[in-house]
Amino acid sequence: MQRFRVRYQVKASAANIEARAQALAIEQSVEMPLSAIHDAELMHTVVGRVETIAPTDAQHFAVTLSLAPETTGFEIGQLLNMLFGNSALHEDLRLEDIELPEAMLARFPGPACGIAGLREQLNAPQRPLTCTALKPQGLPPQALAQLAARFAQAGIDLIKDDHGIAEQHFAPFAQRVPLIQAAVAQANERHGTRSLYVPNLTGGPAHLLEQMRIAKDVGIKAVMVAPMISGISVLSTLREHGFIVLAHPALLGIARMDPALVLGKLFRLAGADAVIYPNHGGRFGFSPACCQRIATFARAPWGLHKAICPVPAGGMHPDRLAEVIAFYGPDVMLLIGGALLDAPDMDRAATDFVQRAAHLSPAYTP
Amino acid sequence: MQRFRVRYQVKASAANIEARAQALAIEQSVEMPLSAIHDAELMHTVVGRVETIAPTDAQHFAVTLSLAPETTGFEIGQLLNMLFGNSALHEDLRLEDIELPEAMLARFPGPACGIAGLREQLNAPQRPLTCTALKPQGLPPQALAQLAARFAQAGIDLIKDDHGIAEQHFAPFAQRVPLIQAAVAQANERHGTRSLYVPNLTGGPAHLLEQMRIAKDVGIKAVMVAPMISGISVLSTLREHGFIVLAHPALLGIARMDPALVLGKLFRLAGADAVIYPNHGGRFGFSPACCQRIATFARAPWGLHKAICPVPAGGMHPDRLAEVIAFYGPDVMLLIGGALLDAPDMDRAATDFVQRAAHLSPAYTP
Repeated sequence: MQRFRVRYQVKASAANIEARAQALAIEQSVEMPLSAIHDAELMHTVVGRVETIAPTDAQHFAVTLSLAPETTGFEIGQLLNMLFGNSALHEDLRLEDIELPEAMLARFPGPACGIAGLREQLNAPQRPLTCTALKPQGLPPQALAQLAARFAQAGIDLIKDDHGIAEQHFAPFAQRVPLIQAAVAQANERHGTRSLYVPNLTGGPAHLLEQMRIAKDVGIKAVMVAPMISGISVLSTLREHGFIVLAHPALLGIARMDPALVLGKLFRLAGADAVIYPNHGGRFGFSPACCQRIATFARAPWGLHKAICPVPAGGMHPDRLAEVIAFYGPDVMLLIGGALLDAPDMDRAATDFVQRAAHLSPAYTP
Repeated sequence: MQRFRVRYQVKASAANIEARAQALAIEQSVEMPLSAIHDAELMHTVVGRVETIAPTDAQHFAVTLSLAPETTGFEIGQLLNMLFGNSALHEDLRLEDIELPEAMLARFPGPACGIAGLREQLNAPQRPLTCTALKPQGLPPQALAQLAARFAQAGIDLIKDDHGIAEQHFAPFAQRVPLIQAAVAQANERHGTRSLYVPNLTGGPAHLLEQMRIAKDVGIKAVMVAPMISGISVLSTLREHGFIVLAHPALLGIARMDPALVLGKLFRLAGADAVIYPNHGGRFGFSPACCQRIATFARAPWGLHKAICPVPAGGMHPDRLAEVIAFYGPDVMLLIGGALLDAPDMDRAATDFVQRAAHLSPAYTP
């Protein structure tokens, strides 16, 4: 199979960049002295190769390595390990981008639903999608269920657990999920809406599998997980279990990996259908260019993998809807949480959110 | 239960540090406008509190928050989420340290074996422990098994998979683990050694559980995992399954979290028995002070949790044994990989490694 490429930004001087790039190629492949490798075939395939080195400014170089696809075992966690495992510990490096040949792309699961599947499920062929969060942690299951019912009545597409809601005694998964799911189903039936409740999955392997079982049992169609906490491979597992998958960016240290690469490409490759990230101008420091890059990576053609839904969030306010839709186009999911909860009339704010999202959609040219 | 404390380094001006600290307390707890919280009890407990703010230099402050232990659900992944989930996305922050009250500490699993259990298993009551790695990925199971047998004959305590060895077609887990385990057992029997083979566990939840089953079936006692890739909660699962647990630092972005906190405290709290990290003066940029801090966090009294074994690694050479043992004392595991494989006479280098580790041990005053 054709090799895949990985680009890093490397801080180095012109005098030592070649040695640094060669050390990087070894660190990210065999991680041992080449003099101790006696197998010519292995040396030719498994050992990383420096393909290009190009200066980007006085202190930095763009270094592109090529690696053997077989070293990933075609598993997303091991891919991440091959991209940045040991090198995440090096302060002079930043992981920038990857280029995977078609044959390799096809070996990863990728999203089962993507934007198209979400639109079908929600019966929303064109308009921007909407999302909100059940908060704060500390509320009992009944209070969360009442909140969810009001959001469902307003017609918000996805009603997710706050990512801080896990297995605390306030509202354990096995208690809250059936209750909230029933409340949303009842509101949907009564008001003709199609809202989906999206519980947050957490914990170790057996615990995650048990949560999936509970979720399946009560008819949950979509779930959320924070892949940098739970392990990125969990995304692929959720996809295999037939869930629509919403990825949360918690614990993603943006300083050392390009957030667009992780959120837009790797989470997509692992099987996420929609990816939450902090929009520019909110509580976090992502730039408009970075947000655009995330959305591009999430939606651009990439092998046969379905486009996935960007979910800009993090302190979004309904006042910004027109601007956000103009920025992203209609293939977007708008996530507003605290600003709805804080509105003088929450039910009206939620209904307005839904109606404006449906009507603000501009003509879109991707 | 008494609240726990989290310390961050915050880049801010004197004029805005109070507002920044307050925003941080909200982000890491309820993540919503306080004006929308109507439950007084919840406001008093679940909402994060700014406890202290102290300037550290002209641009930075040390901010200490207190949070309610109940928000963690006493689960290690959720603890990490409460410490740095959303705030990992903020560039002006660094997670520095935690202070957990005794009652909270006792609710986390912590290591089952720790240094004491490792020493008992290896029949090595006092001397520094030794470790090496099977490399490179790309070798077939038979070649890895032969390599492992030679290291076992030399008497190296732990013989681990390279962290790059996962589920590639070169040597899938189900094929290599029984073969290598048998080779090590045979060498132990023949030469009177007590080496343990430590396979690397990878992949999603069901896959990890299946690997644990295979490992148990063939009598594996110790396993390795990279918690930042597999999910930190996997450490607790491995502990529950009765394995001795070796934690690998891959994907730990040191720029945004104190590595000593993650490696020495959080991995210990999650149940690791030994923790690998790049030693100062090797291929990585950890300072002597940082390495000392990791070792201190790993071994200092901390509630009732057993001390765990620091495993300095990352380009270590046998020439440095005396220096490393003088630095850490005998409660250490010495991990030498590539330098053994690259030695003119590997078997002799491995035997020398074991013998020098046994005899260099200085008088140790912790």
